[in-house]
Amino acid sequence: MPDRQKKSLDQLYGLLKEVVTLYSCQAVLDWDERTYMPRGGGENRANQSAVIAGLAHEKFTSARVGELIDEIIDAGLDPAKDDIDSANIREIKRDYNHSVKIPKTLVEELNRTISLSQGVWQDARAKSDFAAFKPWFEKVTDLKRQVAEAVGYQGVPYNAMLDMYEPGATTDQIAKVFAGLRDELVDLIARIKDSGKGPDRSIITRDYPIELQEKFGIEAAGAIGFDFERGRLDKTTHPFCTGFGPGDTRITTRYDKNYFPMALYGILHEAGHGIYDQGLLKENYATPCGEPISLGIHESQSRMWENMVGRSKAFWKHFLPKAQTVFPDALKNVTIDQIHFAVNDVKPSLIRVEADEATYNLHILLRFELESAFFNGDIKIADVPGEWNERFEKYFGIKPEKDTVGCLQDVHWSAGLIGYFPTYTLGNLYAAQFFAKADKDLGGLHSRFEKGDFKPLLGWLRENIHHHGKRYRATDLIKRVTGEPLSHKPLMSYLNKKFGELYGI
Amino acid sequence: MPDRQKKSLDQLYGLLKEVVTLYSCQAVLDWDERTYMPRGGGENRANQSAVIAGLAHEKFTSARVGELIDEIIDAGLDPAKDDIDSANIREIKRDYNHSVKIPKTLVEELNRTISLSQGVWQDARAKSDFAAFKPWFEKVTDLKRQVAEAVGYQGVPYNAMLDMYEPGATTDQIAKVFAGLRDELVDLIARIKDSGKGPDRSIITRDYPIELQEKFGIEAAGAIGFDFERGRLDKTTHPFCTGFGPGDTRITTRYDKNYFPMALYGILHEAGHGIYDQGLLKENYATPCGEPISLGIHESQSRMWENMVGRSKAFWKHFLPKAQTVFPDALKNVTIDQIHFAVNDVKPSLIRVEADEATYNLHILLRFELESAFFNGDIKIADVPGEWNERFEKYFGIKPEKDTVGCLQDVHWSAGLIGYFPTYTLGNLYAAQFFAKADKDLGGLHSRFEKGDFKPLLGWLRENIHHHGKRYRATDLIKRVTGEPLSHKPLMSYLNKKFGELYGI
Repeated sequence: MPDRQKKSLDQLYGLLKEVVTLYSCQAVLDWDERTYMPRGGGENRANQSAVIAGLAHEKFTSARVGELIDEIIDAGLDPAKDDIDSANIREIKRDYNHSVKIPKTLVEELNRTISLSQGVWQDARAKSDFAAFKPWFEKVTDLKRQVAEAVGYQGVPYNAMLDMYEPGATTDQIAKVFAGLRDELVDLIARIKDSGKGPDRSIITRDYPIELQEKFGIEAAGAIGFDFERGRLDKTTHPFCTGFGPGDTRITTRYDKNYFPMALYGILHEAGHGIYDQGLLKENYATPCGEPISLGIHESQSRMWENMVGRSKAFWKHFLPKAQTVFPDALKNVTIDQIHFAVNDVKPSLIRVEADEATYNLHILLRFELESAFFNGDIKIADVPGEWNERFEKYFGIKPEKDTVGCLQDVHWSAGLIGYFPTYTLGNLYAAQFFAKADKDLGGLHSRFEKGDFKPLLGWLRENIHHHGKRYRATDLIKRVTGEPLSHKPLMSYLNKKFGELYGI
Repeated sequence: MPDRQKKSLDQLYGLLKEVVTLYSCQAVLDWDERTYMPRGGGENRANQSAVIAGLAHEKFTSARVGELIDEIIDAGLDPAKDDIDSANIREIKRDYNHSVKIPKTLVEELNRTISLSQGVWQDARAKSDFAAFKPWFEKVTDLKRQVAEAVGYQGVPYNAMLDMYEPGATTDQIAKVFAGLRDELVDLIARIKDSGKGPDRSIITRDYPIELQEKFGIEAAGAIGFDFERGRLDKTTHPFCTGFGPGDTRITTRYDKNYFPMALYGILHEAGHGIYDQGLLKENYATPCGEPISLGIHESQSRMWENMVGRSKAFWKHFLPKAQTVFPDALKNVTIDQIHFAVNDVKPSLIRVEADEATYNLHILLRFELESAFFNGDIKIADVPGEWNERFEKYFGIKPEKDTVGCLQDVHWSAGLIGYFPTYTLGNLYAAQFFAKADKDLGGLHSRFEKGDFKPLLGWLRENIHHHGKRYRATDLIKRVTGEPLSHKPLMSYLNKKFGELYGI
C-alpha cells in the first residue's frame, strides 16, 4: 500500500472512530430512555440526543471525509475489491454520499421529534388513543419523506427507506418475494387448520413467576452463546437489542406471568441479535467491516436462535429437565412432545411479536403494504387504523378490537423506522437458508442441541457471517456461504417439515 | 441592555447550552457505568467518555467564547453586580479562564484514566489489594498535579484542588476551621464516652428485607420532597447523586439486610442532594445561575435532610408507625426514643459513610490531612495505607484490619476527586447555620416534622438557596441568608444540644 494511501486511510479511520463513538453514546442515551429514565427526563433527553446526533453528522459529513475518500481511491485503492480496506472504503463512500445529502438541521429535528414521539406513542398505546399519536406519526413520516427526497431514489419514495436498512432492496423486488412466499404459506396454514389438531396450551399459560422466568431466560441465553460478561438483560415494553461497542451489548424482554413463551422467546430472539453483535471483530470496530451487514442478516440471526434452535424439539430435549427444576409445579409431568407442540402452536393472533412462525410473515406483509402506501402518499395517516383493521381481518380472519393491539402495537413508526418491517421476513428467509447449509456442513445440528451443545452452530455463524461485518453485501454473502441466491424454498421446506410432523399433515 | 450585548449574550448562552448538554451526556454514561454496565464495557466506555469530554472542552475553550465574554463586558455588563446575567458572566469568565489553561489532551487522558481506574479500584477494594490500585492512584494523582500546574495556584498545589470544588477555599483556612471544630468535638465525644450510656443497637440490626428497605426509603425520600417523576433510585457500591438536566435526577444507595440505617440514611442523604438538583430553576438551565453553588453548599443540603431532619426525634414521631407497618417483626414494641437513640449512636467506626454525626468530621480531617500531604508531595502514595492506619488509630482508637475498610473504602481518589473531602465538613457547618435560621424564620420546624410536614423547610431552602444557583458565592450567600459569616458555632450548638439530651450530659 502506498504511504500516501496508508496515511489517508489512518486519518479517515480516526475520524470515523470519533463519529462511531458519538453514535454509541447516543445508543446509551436511547437505551436508558427505554429502560430506566423517569418520565420527567424526556424533554432534555431529546435535546441530548439531538446534540450528539448533530455533532456526529457534522463530523461525518465534513468536506475532509470526502477528500480523504477521494485521496485513498486516487492512490490506487479499488472499492470493488473485497479485501478489508477496499470493502471499508466502498461502504464509507456509500454512507458519506448518503449523509452529505441530508441537512444537519433535518437530522437534529428528526432525532428530537422521534425522542418525543416515542413518549407520546407509549401513552397512546396504553390508552388505545390513535388520535393523540396521529400528529406525531404524521410529523415523523413527513420528516422521513424529507429524508427520502434529500437522498434521492428511483421509483417510489419508499425505496429510499428500504435502501437504508437493506441496501439495494426495492418495493417491487420485495413484493415479488413476499408474494411467492404467501402462496405456499397460505396453503400450509390451510392444511394445518384442516388437520383439526392443536397443542395443549394450558401448559404454557400456567403460573410462571417473573423472577424465575428471568433466571431461566438468562440460563438459556447464556447456553446458546450470549456472553453476560459483555452484555445484560433488562425489562422493557418492547424488546430490543442494542450495542455500545465492543464488550457491551444490551438486550431486553417483557414478561407475562401467565404466558411463558413471551419472555423466553423474546430473550432468545434478542440474544440472537446480541450474539451477532458480540461476534463482530473488535479489531474492526468503528469501521464497516466491524458492523452488521444489514437488518435482514441481523434478523436472520435472531430468528435462527429463536425459532430454528429455540423452538426445536432438540432444544426442549435438553432444556425441559432444566426448566422443570425452575418451574416444578407448572411443568410437572409435561413431556418433550407436549412442550414442543405448545410453543409451536399455529394460530392467527393480533400481536406480531407473539405470532407463530407460520403466520408471522403475514404480519410483516400487512405492515409492508401499509407503510409503503402511507409513505408513498397512497393513503393518509388518518386511514392507517381503518386500513389495518380491514386488512387484518382479511388475512387473519380476526379483527383488533382496539389500536393498542392493532396499529399502535409496534414502536417502529413512532421511532421513524419506516422500511424496517420487511427486513424481518428477509431475516426468516436468510435464516432458513443459512441453517440448512450449516446443518449440512456440520453433519446434523439437532443431535448436538439435544446434548446442550450449541457451540458448533455458533462457531459456524462466527466464521461465515459475524466475523465479516459488512465486508460482503448480503446478496453476495448468501451466495458465497450457501452457493445459492436467496430463495423462499429453504424456509418453506423447513416450515413444511416441522409443521408437517407436528400436525401430521 | 444594549442590542450588541444582548446578541453576544444569546450567542454565549447558546454555546454554553451545547457544552452543558454534552457534559450531561457524559453524566448519563457515568451513571450507567456505575449502575448497570457489564464489566466488558469498561474499555470502550472510557473512550466514549473521553470523546464527549474532549468535545465539550474544545467547545468551551474556543476563542469565540473568550471573545464573547469580552464583547459583553465591553458593552457595559459589570460582572461584579449580582443580577442574573452579571453573575452568569462572572462565573463563565472564571470557568473559561480556568479551562483554557488545561490542554484538551490532558482532559481526555484524565477522563480515560479515571474511567479505567475506577474499575481497578472496585476490584482492589473487594480484595483489599492496595498494590493493584497503587499505579492507578499514582497516575490519577500525577494527572491532577498536571492540572494544578496548568491552572496555577498560590501557596501549595493542593489549593488548586480545593478551589475547584469550593471556590476561594485554601488549605490554611480550612485547616484553621477544622482545628476549631476539632477541639470542641473531641470534648463532646469524651463526655459522651464518659456518660457510659448507649442505645440498644439490636433494634437496627434485625432482619430488614432489602426490597422492603427500598420501599420504605422511597416513601421517606418522597415525603421530604424528592420527586420520583423527575428522578429515580438505584443500587450501587458507593451511593451517589447525579443529574442529567431538568427533570432527571438519579440517586443511589446500598443495602445491608441486617443494618437498617445504611440504606435509609444513604437514601435521605442522596435525596437531599437530589432535592437541591431538582430545585434549580429550569429557565436558568445550562447557565451558572441554574447550577449548584459549590460542593460545600450541595453537601449542606444532603446533611441537613439526612441528619438534622432524618435523625431527629420529630422525624421518627412521624415515621416510626409507618416503618412498623413495613417491618412489623423487626420494629415490634420499639419506641420513638429507642429508634431515635439507635440511629444516633456515637461510636468510632471504620467507614466514613456509616459514621455518626459526632465522629464524622474526624474521618474528613484524616482524609484532608492525607490528601493534602500526598498531593503536595510530602508523603508518597505508597505510604497512604500506613499513614491512614496510624492516624486512624490515633484519632479513633481503632485500626482498620484491611484496606477495604481503610484507605480503599472511598471512590474519590480513584475518580480523581482530590480536594473534595473537605467539602463534606463545610457542608455540615453550612447545614447547621442554615437550619438554625430556617427554624427561627419558620417558628419551629420540629413540630412540623412530627406531622410529616416537610414543605415549610423545603420551601425555605428553595427560596433562599436552590433558586439562586450560582448567583451568589457561598461565602456571600451564608451572610445574605443568615446575617453571619460561616462559623462552627451553630454546628457545635446543634450537636451539643442533641447529644446532650440523648446521653444526659
